[in-house]
Formats: sequence, structure tokens, C-alpha cells
Amino acid sequence: MSEFKRAGNRAADALRPIVIQRGFTRHAEGSVLVCFGETRVLCTASVEEKVPPHKRGSGEGWVTAEYGMLPRATHTRGDREAARGKQSGRTQEIQRLIGRSLRCVFDLAALGERSILIDCDVLQADGGTRTAAITGAWVAAQDAVNWLIGQGLLTKSPIKEPVAAVSVGIVEGTPLLDLEYTEDAACDTDMNVVMTGSGGFVEVQGTAEGASFTRSEMDALLALADKGIRELVQAQAAALALPLPR
Amino acid sequence: MSEFKRAGNRAADALRPIVIQRGFTRHAEGSVLVCFGETRVLCTASVEEKVPPHKRGSGEGWVTAEYGMLPRATHTRGDREAARGKQSGRTQEIQRLIGRSLRCVFDLAALGERSILIDCDVLQADGGTRTAAITGAWVAAQDAVNWLIGQGLLTKSPIKEPVAAVSVGIVEGTPLLDLEYTEDAACDTDMNVVMTGSGGFVEVQGTAEGASFTRSEMDALLALADKGIRELVQAQAAALALPLPR
Amino acid sequence: MSEFKRAGNRAADALRPIVIQRGFTRHAEGSVLVCFGETRVLCTASVEEKVPPHKRGSGEGWVTAEYGMLPRATHTRGDREAARGKQSGRTQEIQRLIGRSLRCVFDLAALGERSILIDCDVLQADGGTRTAAITGAWVAAQDAVNWLIGQGLLTKSPIKEPVAAVSVGIVEGTPLLDLEYTEDAACDTDMNVVMTGSGGFVEVQGTAEGASFTRSEMDALLALADKGIRELVQAQAAALALPLPR
Amino acid sequence: MSEFKRAGNRAADALRPIVIQRGFTRHAEGSVLVCFGETRVLCTASVEEKVPPHKRGSGEGWVTAEYGMLPRATHTRGDREAARGKQSGRTQEIQRLIGRSLRCVFDLAALGERSILIDCDVLQADGGTRTAAITGAWVAAQDAVNWLIGQGLLTKSPIKEPVAAVSVGIVEGTPLLDLEYTEDAACDTDMNVVMTGSGGFVEVQGTAEGASFTRSEMDALLALADKGIRELVQAQAAALALPLPR
Amino acid sequence: MSEFKRAGNRAADALRPIVIQRGFTRHAEGSVLVCFGETRVLCTASVEEKVPPHKRGSGEGWVTAEYGMLPRATHTRGDREAARGKQSGRTQEIQRLIGRSLRCVFDLAALGERSILIDCDVLQADGGTRTAAITGAWVAAQDAVNWLIGQGLLTKSPIKEPVAAVSVGIVEGTPLLDLEYTEDAACDTDMNVVMTGSGGFVEVQGTAEGASFTRSEMDALLALADKGIRELVQAQAAALALPLPR
Amino acid sequence: MSEFKRAGNRAADALRPIVIQRGFTRHAEGSVLVCFGETRVLCTASVEEKVPPHKRGSGEGWVTAEYGMLPRATHTRGDREAARGKQSGRTQEIQRLIGRSLRCVFDLAALGERSILIDCDVLQADGGTRTAAITGAWVAAQDAVNWLIGQGLLTKSPIKEPVAAVSVGIVEGTPLLDLEYTEDAACDTDMNVVMTGSGGFVEVQGTAEGASFTRSEMDALLALADKGIRELVQAQAAALALPLPR
Repeated sequence: MSEFKRAGNRAADALRPIVIQRGFTRHAEGSVLVCFGETRVLCTASVEEKVPPHKRGSGEGWVTAEYGMLPRATHTRGDREAARGKQSGRTQEIQRLIGRSLRCVFDLAALGERSILIDCDVLQADGGTRTAAITGAWVAAQDAVNWLIGQGLLTKSPIKEPVAAVSVGIVEGTPLLDLEYTEDAACDTDMNVVMTGSGGFVEVQGTAEGASFTRSEMDALLALADKGIRELVQAQAAALALPLPR
Repeated sequence: MSEFKRAGNRAADALRPIVIQRGFTRHAEGSVLVCFGETRVLCTASVEEKVPPHKRGSGEGWVTAEYGMLPRATHTRGDREAARGKQSGRTQEIQRLIGRSLRCVFDLAALGERSILIDCDVLQADGGTRTAAITGAWVAAQDAVNWLIGQGLLTKSPIKEPVAAVSVGIVEGTPLLDLEYTEDAACDTDMNVVMTGSGGFVEVQGTAEGASFTRSEMDALLALADKGIRELVQAQAAALALPLPR
Repeated sequence: MSEFKRAGNRAADALRPIVIQRGFTRHAEGSVLVCFGETRVLCTASVEEKVPPHKRGSGEGWVTAEYGMLPRATHTRGDREAARGKQSGRTQEIQRLIGRSLRCVFDLAALGERSILIDCDVLQADGGTRTAAITGAWVAAQDAVNWLIGQGLLTKSPIKEPVAAVSVGIVEGTPLLDLEYTEDAACDTDMNVVMTGSGGFVEVQGTAEGASFTRSEMDALLALADKGIRELVQAQAAALALPLPR
Repeated sequence: MSEFKRAGNRAADALRPIVIQRGFTRHAEGSVLVCFGETRVLCTASVEEKVPPHKRGSGEGWVTAEYGMLPRATHTRGDREAARGKQSGRTQEIQRLIGRSLRCVFDLAALGERSILIDCDVLQADGGTRTAAITGAWVAAQDAVNWLIGQGLLTKSPIKEPVAAVSVGIVEGTPLLDLEYTEDAACDTDMNVVMTGSGGFVEVQGTAEGASFTRSEMDALLALADKGIRELVQAQAAALALPLPR
Repeated sequence: MSEFKRAGNRAADALRPIVIQRGFTRHAEGSVLVCFGETRVLCTASVEEKVPPHKRGSGEGWVTAEYGMLPRATHTRGDREAARGKQSGRTQEIQRLIGRSLRCVFDLAALGERSILIDCDVLQADGGTRTAAITGAWVAAQDAVNWLIGQGLLTKSPIKEPVAAVSVGIVEGTPLLDLEYTEDAACDTDMNVVMTGSGGFVEVQGTAEGASFTRSEMDALLALADKGIRELVQAQAAALALPLPR
Repeated sequence: MSEFKRAGNRAADALRPIVIQRGFTRHAEGSVLVCFGETRVLCTASVEEKVPPHKRGSGEGWVTAEYGMLPRATHTRGDREAARGKQSGRTQEIQRLIGRSLRCVFDLAALGERSILIDCDVLQADGGTRTAAITGAWVAAQDAVNWLIGQGLLTKSPIKEPVAAVSVGIVEGTPLLDLEYTEDAACDTDMNVVMTGSGGFVEVQGTAEGASFTRSEMDALLALADKGIRELVQAQAAALALPLPR
């Protein structure tokens, strides 16, 4: 079978151009604009000196996330969820995923009884908004932790290691890394993979669209994801190596 | 490491007792009580001669699902979602999963422009409610298809093959099949796997709780799931081989 | 006028077959499946060691109820109230009725500052769901009280006497006891009557459908209800005389 | 037992002063301020040339009601239901009762495929708001029918006879007619009775508060209600005999 | 340009007949029916011995308002906001305006840590409901303050001066004072002006409908509003000079 | 009185640095990031070939707006309105204002039966979000109109002239143009003024915070606003004179 031809001659195993811009807005303790190609997500991390009820008095902190998409982030304008009066199932599913992924690399006891809330708002969507959100959210959380240390509220980081995410999928028989929107719409199987900097799996969510997929297809996709996440973790580190703007 | 000891001396790779009782209620076109041990889910399939807006005029049908849990299905009474005025993110995530899983084995064109709605209501919960729901929902859908054929509304089945689901997880280092509640609460990694009768993957959702998991752990879990699903598909076939009560 | 002919040759003054199955689910302090013919309602009683705001600090307890119907409990699938985001007026009216009926036979001071929440969920509907719910709810509440006594949390029962409920109505001129769905749909007048074991009235709710009803019709209906409730109270006692399953 | 002493030396079987003022506001097709003593309810009847979905194409009309209470109609300010975002169970129960009561005296076929919507808004509450509302709503509906006849949209009235309502209850052993707020709060049993001008029952809703009530108590209450409703029907007729203001 | 001819030969700079009836209902600490011609708004002031969270512990009180319109206050029946489950943007805008206007003439420290809640409910609408509401709300607030003084809860009034409001607009080139509904619907520019008794501006809200308006048009409208508010403040004083009914 | 000293030595009558960046996102027909100093609002204009019900069949189009604020646009994180399930009164008030302001300069008949929806989402807030939103929304609308003309769907522009908005206020006795957050929080009187390119008023909304304001204060503020809006209209024209990025 001939290989699927990607836009801009991108190789099947190549990420889109990754941009991680810290200090994008000024009020949040961490504020990161993350771009996976044309997908752009603003991730802000807010520190609050309180925890949700199930953590009160535990001495442990909490990390959680909310996700939203501006109505015209997409080709066709979507309803504003605030106007409709509820978040869609998709929105809730994604924000739960982001929260779990972040918590997996956090030592909640070391965070102390406070919360970090990550807001991931999609300014422009072109596939992979949830994986970009997780990748950017970790950098925003890192900046919020740095702020806590800078304020003397923490002496050491409660973050155990990096976490990043990428989508993979099979389009016309070809396994591809980091799907853009048109690829996502055309794919038979797609998988979102969340991994730590040390290569452990945090989440694997594979879904057949149409036909089911085989074990060897899954293996091919996991290998691609592993490659992509290594590169994303490098991009996170590079962004954090720069001085924070302002 | 010594192996984790399961309740009732259950083997690590054993399902709980599976009961699939068809014709449990009488109004629905398909009505199945499915039990994975103490987890009991009532799955009803309702045929409606209309489709949602995105399918109107397409000549294709639709299969969708809703999920609910009775307030005292659990150890501690949960809020009634109807009284609270909204479905939780967890509920929406599960019902979307059930719907996708069923659609994957349906030929929607062969169904014709009508809908099958699956309601999965948990009467008693002891872990694995979503996997039991998928497994039972497929049998209820099969009975609804049989009803459509019996009514002369369809001449051949739009169902391509069986679909079933099981949870797997690692508890104290031991990979286990079909987690009950106490195992689920204690596990480090858990994974819900949805597969077709022919062994294809429909959904793989693995989540690290606490520590991330390795590739070899994932392989062990997928092998367990494969075994469990083969047995569940046999149980579905056995239930369907009996005459429908009433 | 010739008498209305009931399904299955049931006499005008006969109840449908009554089944009261205790211990139907295992987590609740009381769990009863009650069947009035094909109407089947699961009633669970949950004990909570707190009371609503208007009872705090009063030394008195509270008994309340919630009611729901599975979407396909009925001939035609109804909307799921949790998905629609609110309970219908009918649902609220019924759950208020169940709560009032139970409280009428409870000594709330003797219960102590704790709550019993009764959930009545209709698995299958064929008329009389609210009367079956009240009749079953009382048995579930009794089991919850027995559990409280068994736990040493109460030394004597705060339940003063039994309470049960039945519907009566006039169909084609014939007064009937315990209406099933087709009778309910056809009736001119229907009445729900809630009475105590000692024959006192707790609630009488008579409604004309179409034409108004006369005083002598009301008297005939009240006499039928009285007969039915005596039999239901016997059925409750018989169910409670058996050992609790498990 | 000595008889309960009512405020203002009112006799046990006496209504409060009844005022039925037509043409209270000017936009509605019928607009009536009804006062049962200090209880004041504004009832407006609006004609709409359409029917709800279940009546479309039936050739029949519909009559329905909505009920509300101004936040400070009561001694203590209540929440505004519009601000809270939902109607209470009590509100829904009352508006369903008003609608059923009105429909019972309407020939819906003679009304033609149009609706009469009755809004009952309590300006001041002192017990008996639902019975005042029904009594006033019928007069407002009558004025709306007169308007339809005046417009040439109907040639004869679809109203078969009057309907009115009153509360009765037992306070300290004394059966009382038309309870005001302090009596309502103190009563052991209260009953709302809706009857037609010809003496037929439309609704009987008796509720024990505290102890259950006996058959002879019910008989005493029904006799009182019958007397009260005869007087209310006379008051309705007297109000309608006057020329409509403006 | 020939001058626009108003209904009833009203002069361009004349208010409609103003009625301010205190003590309209009996439970509220202040209760005023205010009529600007056919516009009738019931304003009640309720005293509560608590403040919203942002004022707790401040030693200062709070004054706020809610606004509603009976469904048939208007020519065509509007939806009941409580039934629809939310207040419209218009409703919220108006109640925020009323609250701000009242607070502007209140010394919140002198009020002490308690709240005055003003409910403004439109019984009949004919243009200018918000300006009538503000004008009447101030009188109701004054009566509530008098009640507080009468109860010994305050020794001097926290109200610094009167506040009143009026609408002005340009219809067919003619600047008009106090628009009624048909004028409001026809106007090119309309402005709501809230002023204190001493002639200070509290709110000025001018809106072009269709074409924008010029500075000289604004000046003409402000002069008209100033005249109208002087007269409204006199009407408020006259109403307060009478003894409170009851 | 000595003059209030502004941050960065800004003159009392000076705007903050204004940036109007077109083509900020790529899916919308018009997409503008507008910055008034640190206030940054993303305004997108979406064309839809349908109109709301009240315009159907009229031959006229519609222009409307929605407004939102990212949760961490502000110093302290605010609730996400989509999660809370409703838009605040403030949000609704602002989006109604933006819609009215735009419609005032649109010839809706010339637009044809289609809609332009403006989404104004605040990425970072530092006072004046609504005035920045209006100013940017007009540019986005202009780009959407250019797109319609480019597509051959319109032959001439339905936009009659520019519209822009600015805030003015009095802080410590000094009238200031274009308030930033700290000034807004400290001001005694603030006013939002919307004007057309030709100097007509579209909206004037002045509010006293604390003390009322005088006529001469209003005149001073209106003069400042006039100056600011002239400059904003020049900035709009300058932005539109550049080629659209992409």
C-alpha cells in the first residue's frame, strides 16, 4: 500500500512545529501558549491556597484542570458552552484527562494543602487540542511551582518528572504521528497517549473509528507515540531553559 | 513478589460469575440484566423510527447509549443526577464509550434510518459497571434487531459481530482480570478494553493511578483482557442460544 | 350497567399479585423490590447520620424520598430526567407524597438526629407506581430501622405503625381496586389512598378525569381502598416475617 | 373539647371575606384579583391561537395554568424562583392542580384548537392560595371566553359549569372552613376540595399532618367544603353579573 | 418640523399621572405600588439581618434589588422566567441598575450589617417599568428604614437623599418626557436617567435606536429628565407625608 | 486640587497604547486581537447564512455578539461560566451592549438575510474590556464584510460608518480617558461612551460609584470621550489600511 501523503510533506513520524511560549498573559502564576502547528492552546496555572472538600485536612494538595474552546476556534462556529448552560461530554472528558495526567507526576503531599488549577483554552483548533493542552499545562504548572518556590511557599518542587501527550492514528493504512484536523477526520483508528519523561505510560486511549484495529497496529502506534513524546519533553525543557519573559 | 490474593480464591485471570438474563423487563425491544459478580446492570434497547439531526436523510441509522446509576447502587448513597440537574462528567464519558463501542460493530446503512437507544442502568455496583454495560448492551441490541426482523422491518441483521468489554489492572504488582470494587480502588493501573468477537480492538483505555506503567505491564494486561473477552463473547452466545423468556 | 371486564379475570375488588422481595440489592440498609403485578419498583432505604438544615440541632430526625423511572420502564421510552436536567412536576409531586406518607408513621424524635432517605426507582411500570412505591418504601424503612437497632444505634423502633397505599378508580361505571395501566388510562375518576395499618387516612387524592364524581362514588372508592390496604399491610407483615436474605 | 377560637370571631364554617375584582389589569383577555381575606391572587387568562404538541391537529383546545408567588408575598421573603433557576415541587404541584381543575369544566372540542393560559400570581399570602387561585382562575377564564365570543371567534361558551375550591382542616379537634395561614400551620389534617357548581367533586386532596385522620373526620370536612364552595360559586356569579370595568 | 402628538394630549414635557401607594401589601417592611400612567410596579422592601459574603464582618450593610414581570403584564404573554429556568439578560440588567441606584443614596455603614432587598414586580407594563421601579423602590426603602427606626434597630436614617428615575426620548424629532410603550417602540433615541433629590446624576443610559444622536439632542433630553425627576421627587415626598395605611 | 498621577506618566487625556492586530486566528471570517494597554480581547466575526427567528423572511440580516472572559484573564481566577452553567448578569449586559453598538452602524437590509456573530473573548483584563471589545469587533466585522464581498455574496458594504468605544471617569477629582483597572476600581464616576466615526452618540452609560456626579463633570467626561474615540477610529482605519496577514 502506498503511504498517505501529509500536508507540507511532513513525514509520517514527524511532529508539527512545536512552540511553547511562556509568560503569555501576566496575571496567572504560570501562563503558556502552546502550538502544535495551527493548534494553539492557552494554558494558565492558578495557585489557590485551598483544596476541594475531599482533600481538606489531609495535608495534601490538589491539581485539576478545566478545558474550553473559543466558539470560533474551529472551522464552523460552535455554541458557546456558557451560553448553552452546560459543558459538553467531550469537554468534561478532556478536562478530566488533563487533570489525571498532571496529578500523575505530582507529589500531592509535597505540594502542601493548596491547589493548582490549570485552565486550557483553545484559541485555534487544528487537531490534537487535548494533547497540546497536556503538554502546555505541564509547563504552566512548572512555572506556578517556580512561583511558589520564589515566594518561599515551597522549598522543593512537588513535580516528579515531565508529562506530555501526543495523538497517533492510522490514516489509509499509514500510522501517523501528531494528527492534524483533516487527518483526524479521515483516520480509522486514533490514539491519545500520555507519557512521562522517563517513558512510563500515564494514559493510553485508543479508539477504532469504523473498523477495529489489530495488535500489531497498536504496537506501531505506541512506537510512534514514544518517539513523539521524547521530542515534546525536549521542547518543554528547552522552553523552561529560557528566562521567563517580563 | 507474592501474588495478590483475590476474594473467594478467584484466580488472577478469572472472570467473576457472569449472568446474562434476557427479557428482564417487558416493554423494551431488548432487555438484559447483566451481572459481573455483584455488579448488576439493566440494559434495555429501544427502537425508534427516527434518527438524530446529523443522520436525517442519510439513509443510515444510529445507535447510542445513556448510562445511569441508581443512587444507592453503591456503598454510600450518591446524589440522584436528575435531582442535581446534570449528569456528571463520569456518566457522560461512560455513555459516550458505550455508544462508540456498539456503533463499531453495526452497519448503520443496513440498520436503515432508525435508532437503537441503549439504556444502561446500574442497579448494584461492585466495579466494572461500564464493561458489564457494554457486554450486556450488545445482547440487548441483538434482541432489538431480532425484534426488527420479527416485525418484518429488517430482513438481515446490521450487526457485524459481537462486542464485549472487560477491565484489567495491576494490584500490588499482580495483573488481574475483571476487577471488583475493592481491587479497583487499590489498583495502580487499570485498563478498560473493548474488543470484537474476532479479536479486534475497539477501545483501549489505560490509566495510571499513582505511578505510570511500563510497556511490559501493558502487554500483560492486554493478554488478560483478550482471554476475558473470549469468555464473555461465549457467554453472550450462550445467552442468545436460549429461547427469549415470555 | 354491565360490569367492566378486567384482564386475567381479576375481580373488581382484587389486588394484582403482590410480591415484596427484601434484600434485593446489598449495599442499602433496606432494599425491597415491590411488585404490584407487572409494576416493579426498587425501594432502597439509606441511613445518613445527618439531617437537613431545618432539623439541625432539633434532636429530631428526617425521612424523605426520591422517585425516578428508568427511561424504558414504560411502553414508549421517556426522556432520562438526568439528561434533560430537571425532574418533571409529576416526579416531584410523587416523591413529596412518598416522603409525607412515611413521615406520618415515624416518630422523628425517636429516630434521633439522623435521616432515612428512600429511593424509589421504577424498573417497570404498569400503573400504580406511586402506591407500590409507598408500600415498598415502608418495608425498606423497616429494614433500615432494624439495621439501626442491630448496630446499637437505636434501642427501639421509631416506626409507629405500617403505612401502605393503593389506587382505586371508576372505569366504565365500575369501581376498581389497584388499577393497571390500561385501566388507569381509561378511568373517569382515580384516587390514590394512603392509609395506616390501624385504618387511619394519611393521604386521599382523588381526581376527576373528564366528568366530576359524586359523593356516593367517592364512598365506593374509599371502601375498596380500605379493603386493598388491609391486604397490603398483611403482605408487608408476611414479607417482614421471613428472614432477610443474605 | 372546647371549640377552636378563630381570628375576628369567624365561625368555624364561615369563609373569609371574598372579593373577586374583574378587569384588574388591562392587557389580558381575562384579569381577576381574587381575595380570600388577606390572601390575594392575580389571575390572568391569555388566549393563544395555538395548542401544545399533543393537541395539534386534534381540533381540540387546551387549558393550562402557571402559578407563582411574589418573593415577599409571605411573612419571610422567599427565594425568587426565576433567580434560583427552577420552580419548586410545590409550585409545580399547584399549577398542575389548577390546570386539571379548569379543564374538568371545559369542553375542549368546543373551545376549538386554541389555548387559554391562566397565570395565577400570589401578591399576598395568608393561607389558601391554591384554592383562591382556582376560584379566581375560573372567573378569568370566563372573561376570556366572553372576549372570544365578543370577537366572533366562538359562538357559544365551551365552559360547562363553574368550578371553585376551598380548603378545610381540623385544628385542635375543630373542623374549620377556609383556613388562614396560622390555622393552616396549626392543623392536624388539611384538605383541599375542588367542586363544580353542580356539586360534583373534581379534586379531593386530604393530607394528615402528624396523626392520620378518620373516616368521620373526613365526612365532616367534606360537608364543610360543600357549604363553602356553594358560597364561592355564588360569589363568582355575582362578580360576573357586574359589568366588566373599562 | 411639526411636534409629535401624544396620547391624551399630554405635553411633550409632562409626566404621566403618578400614583405612589404605600402599604400595598402587609408582610413587607416597605410595600409600594407605583404607577406611571398604566405602568404599575409593586415594590417591596425586605429587611434581613445578614449581608452577602463580600460584606460579612465589614460593619456595613447592603441594598440590592430583584426585578420581575408577571407573564401577562404585557400585550402579548411572555414566558415565565421561573418556568424557563433563567432570568433574561434584560431582567438582570434592570435589577442591577435598580440596586446601584438605591445604593448611591445609602450610607451603608449607617445601615449596619444588615440588608434591604427590594423586589420590583411589574403587574402591568406600558413603558418605563425600570424608572417607575427605581422611583417606587426608594419609597419602599424609606418605609423599611422607618420600620427599622420604629423597631429601635436604627436611630437615624442611612438614606442620604431621594433618588428617582425617568425615561426620555426623541420620537419623530420631538424630545419627550416619560415615554409610554407606543412612544418607546417608535423612538429613535431613548435615555433612562436616574438622579438624586439634589440634582446629581446617578445613572445616565442613552441608547440610539437606528441613527446615532447628537450632543444637542442629548442636552435637550437631559433638561427634560431634570424637570421630570424634580416632579417625581415631589411625588415621593407627598406620598411619604401621608400616614402609612393600616 | 492636584491632578491624579497615572501609571507610566500617562496624560489624563491619553489613551493607552492601542494595538489592533487583524488575522489573529485563521478560521473566522474576521479575527482581530485588540489591545488597550494590557487589556487584550480576541474578537472574531463569523458569517452564518441564516438569521434568528424574528428576522426570518424579512430580507434583513442580523448582527449580534457574545462576550466571555477566560477564567484567569484577571488577577484572581474567576469561575468558568460554562462550568457554573450560566452567564453572569455582567456578561449578558456587555454582550447586549456590543450587539446594539454594532447594529447601529449596519444597514441590515443591505446585509441580506444572513448573520454576523461577533465573539469577544478577553484573554487578559486590565480595565475597559467592553470598550476594547466594541472597538475591535467593528474591525472584525469589517473583515467579515470584506470576505463576503470577496466571495461575491455582497456587492457593497452594509457598514455605514465606524463605531468605537472608550471609558472615561473621574478619579480623585480628575477626569481621565481610558481607565485601566486600578483607576476603574478607584473612580467615583465612570462612563462608557460609544460613538460613530462621524461623532454621533450610540450609547452613553454613566454610573456614579459612591457620590452622584454633576452636569459639568458629565460635560468634561463627554469631551474626553470624544477625543479618545476620534483617535480610536484613526487606529481602526490604520489597521484596515494594512494588508490582511496570511
